[in-house]
Amino acid sequence: MADKKMVEAITSRDEDFAQWYTDIVKKADLIDYSSVKGCMIIRPYGYAIWENMQKILDGMFKETGHENVYMPMFIPESLLNKEKDHVQGFAPEVAWVTHGGSEKLPERLCVRPTSETLFCEHYSNIIQSHRDLPKLYNQWCSVVRWEKTTRPFLRSREFLWQEGHTVHATAEEAVEETERMLNIYADFCEKYLNMPVIKGKKTESDKFAGAEATYAIEALMHDGKALQAGTSHYFGDGFAKAFNITYTSKENKLEYVYETSWGVTTRLIGAVIMSHGDDNGLVLPPAVAPIQIVIIPVNQQKEGVLEKAYELKERLKGKFRVKVDDSNNSAGWKFSEYEMKGVPLRLEIGPKDIENDQCVIVRRDNREKSFVSLNELEENIEKLLKAFSDNIYRIAYENMQKRTYECTTMDEITQKLAENGDGFVHAMWCGEEACEDKVKEVTGVGSRCIPFEQKEISDKCVCCGKPAQHMVCWGKAY
Amino acid sequence: MADKKMVEAITSRDEDFAQWYTDIVKKADLIDYSSVKGCMIIRPYGYAIWENMQKILDGMFKETGHENVYMPMFIPESLLNKEKDHVQGFAPEVAWVTHGGSEKLPERLCVRPTSETLFCEHYSNIIQSHRDLPKLYNQWCSVVRWEKTTRPFLRSREFLWQEGHTVHATAEEAVEETERMLNIYADFCEKYLNMPVIKGKKTESDKFAGAEATYAIEALMHDGKALQAGTSHYFGDGFAKAFNITYTSKENKLEYVYETSWGVTTRLIGAVIMSHGDDNGLVLPPAVAPIQIVIIPVNQQKEGVLEKAYELKERLKGKFRVKVDDSNNSAGWKFSEYEMKGVPLRLEIGPKDIENDQCVIVRRDNREKSFVSLNELEENIEKLLKAFSDNIYRIAYENMQKRTYECTTMDEITQKLAENGDGFVHAMWCGEEACEDKVKEVTGVGSRCIPFEQKEISDKCVCCGKPAQHMVCWGKAY
Repeated sequence: MADKKMVEAITSRDEDFAQWYTDIVKKADLIDYSSVKGCMIIRPYGYAIWENMQKILDGMFKETGHENVYMPMFIPESLLNKEKDHVQGFAPEVAWVTHGGSEKLPERLCVRPTSETLFCEHYSNIIQSHRDLPKLYNQWCSVVRWEKTTRPFLRSREFLWQEGHTVHATAEEAVEETERMLNIYADFCEKYLNMPVIKGKKTESDKFAGAEATYAIEALMHDGKALQAGTSHYFGDGFAKAFNITYTSKENKLEYVYETSWGVTTRLIGAVIMSHGDDNGLVLPPAVAPIQIVIIPVNQQKEGVLEKAYELKERLKGKFRVKVDDSNNSAGWKFSEYEMKGVPLRLEIGPKDIENDQCVIVRRDNREKSFVSLNELEENIEKLLKAFSDNIYRIAYENMQKRTYECTTMDEITQKLAENGDGFVHAMWCGEEACEDKVKEVTGVGSRCIPFEQKEISDKCVCCGKPAQHMVCWGKAY
Repeated sequence: MADKKMVEAITSRDEDFAQWYTDIVKKADLIDYSSVKGCMIIRPYGYAIWENMQKILDGMFKETGHENVYMPMFIPESLLNKEKDHVQGFAPEVAWVTHGGSEKLPERLCVRPTSETLFCEHYSNIIQSHRDLPKLYNQWCSVVRWEKTTRPFLRSREFLWQEGHTVHATAEEAVEETERMLNIYADFCEKYLNMPVIKGKKTESDKFAGAEATYAIEALMHDGKALQAGTSHYFGDGFAKAFNITYTSKENKLEYVYETSWGVTTRLIGAVIMSHGDDNGLVLPPAVAPIQIVIIPVNQQKEGVLEKAYELKERLKGKFRVKVDDSNNSAGWKFSEYEMKGVPLRLEIGPKDIENDQCVIVRRDNREKSFVSLNELEENIEKLLKAFSDNIYRIAYENMQKRTYECTTMDEITQKLAENGDGFVHAMWCGEEACEDKVKEVTGVGSRCIPFEQKEISDKCVCCGKPAQHMVCWGKAY
């Protein structure tokens, strides 16, 4: 019987964060596993989160002049080989197509791990003059990287993403674009995912294969581990030279173009889970929640209750994403179910409420309950959703603050992490890769980025004691 | 210099339809070729048409209760093999992944040619009870079929599509769904692509691999060839038995589910080109045109002209997709360029127009010119777009009527086609595959479908003279 159905409890977040995460992705119906190892099925509730993210991001891209295109999913081996750093970075983890039907292909094709090479080949065909520049293209697609160990959303052999690829007449314009897109990603994470991020530059050893510079936004998960949430790469004219992408300038000279690329992936869904979720399940930012308000009729067998619930849905659906659960499951089951699914607001309506022309609204983040007059429903929902977003941002921000440690010695790093748990370590660095490696080896935290917001914690490298060049943000990464 | 740039002429449609088509896809900037044989690059202007189609269709799917998901792009060979008709149909034309990085895979994976097997495996995991039914899933993705000869949009090794896969408790509900989706496709084609279609059932020999029945919509292109524009399949419980998808009924009995699948592809872009295009290029249905109105400032160096053009754009952009071309190209070049691109309306605004508080609007379909008062601009644009849609539908409909031949003998088929050119042949059929094959062999037209709208042209099979079972719509297919 439906009534006996229970929402199963999940592992406690503080007891076993990894298991808690795995429980949530399954029990909130975000994903399912399949017989395709390392790949996941994104179920309707998970996919709806991605669709909401896509819609907002796509709007931000188009507003800044970008256009969508679609490139083939296959890259001939010879094309992948054209830029040597790029192929070295990606070849070890690509899937190779060797046969079409029963015939062996004359040349192997890799399933795109990223599409720089395809975009470059296309750009070399379509760009002749300075009047053809800039080209600001983006595509939404799936890519494949043959990872050994995988986790839903965070690392899988196939994942969904968008990849922007742009071409500019000057280095200056390309750098500007790289920064613009990093800022768009940061704004998106903060405003719509309610997740604070650190903007910065990757160190040399951590750059994208073929890039001159890689910028990233880094977020801190509830457990103190860092998650790279988006990257934006400046290519200089490296790819242009490898693919011979030139244009005739206003002065009638042949010049190489300057390029960028930038991307975010379904990994952002993992970031949302690990930033905001709790022991009762998901907590979803209203901007991307598939359901913002679930209406639960209380004593729904009583006359007029279901009708009122439907009426409220009709009234709210133009402004909010709203659902009525009129199933025969118990109210208690429904409460747990939508807590698990992270629905921001639960609206309860029963015979007494109807009599008083009010309803009860319960927030998912702090379980605060309000009695709301039906005359002022929309305004109150808007206020509650705003307060909800602000509150989950604040919690995530405070977690990051609490878990950010300024350190001047290696011992201090080890000690802070041992005492307070994983987090961001801010410490100075001389710029030598040897020191970067040693910090990781000794303390366990790797360089996440060189934050744009610098602070001179000391004038010496935390590792070798030589003059420091940058403050680095270190952390354990997902 | 920009002024010298010319819009190159294309091959005449009636002289060489195939070359005309190829010219358009290139010169209207819809696609580009790449070094990936048989795959195409969909450029911004082409992709924007697809985005508009997606948006409308996705809305229609969601309105009828469907949800989007994402399945892996790979199918293990053993999974593809589970339903024997299905694998026989698809195995000869799939791309096989054999290596991940430098390692040989323990089992080959095919790149999905369609995802029935993945959906079935998933459904067998998530469906237990009648309360879990129906499941109405859809996905937007790309699929791969290793075709020998390819043409942009019409037949390529990789193409974009949507594939709906649904599961129902009863055969009746599944049949209903199959019909519902066919009707949605037909409505979409008629209302939004302004393209008349014939709804019907495929003959046994032309069914989807693994289906119990396949339904299709068939459209007639300007040259008289038929194009299958969408299909909807009823699977009965065949896949359910192969994949063991069962549910417990209300009566507590274990039952097999009934399934459907349905899809349309980027081929619809090809259909639009070949239904409406002319010797000046594309003619795009307003509902999917990336630009509905292009504003051309006339004598744009004169004071106030560009300002007025921008002002009109700002005014119109909330209601229509509108662009100002303020480039230095000549007005003549611009006229040709947007004719090539099939933009429905061209709005010209010059100093004289501004003085008279009016503008000139020219329709792409019939080049009709109207002087429109700026006070009544929006209403007039709406009327013109409506008249435009109606007119291109009428032209395509009349082409289909003119090219539909009712025939009672094989000789008559041959004669009508020779006299009037390719088209739909309506003729009776006994139901035997041998006759179906013979009609094709002798006259060149194959069975497109058994139209829902039947007419008893004669009581004898056009081929063998035995009692007829159905009127079949025959044609040469893209």
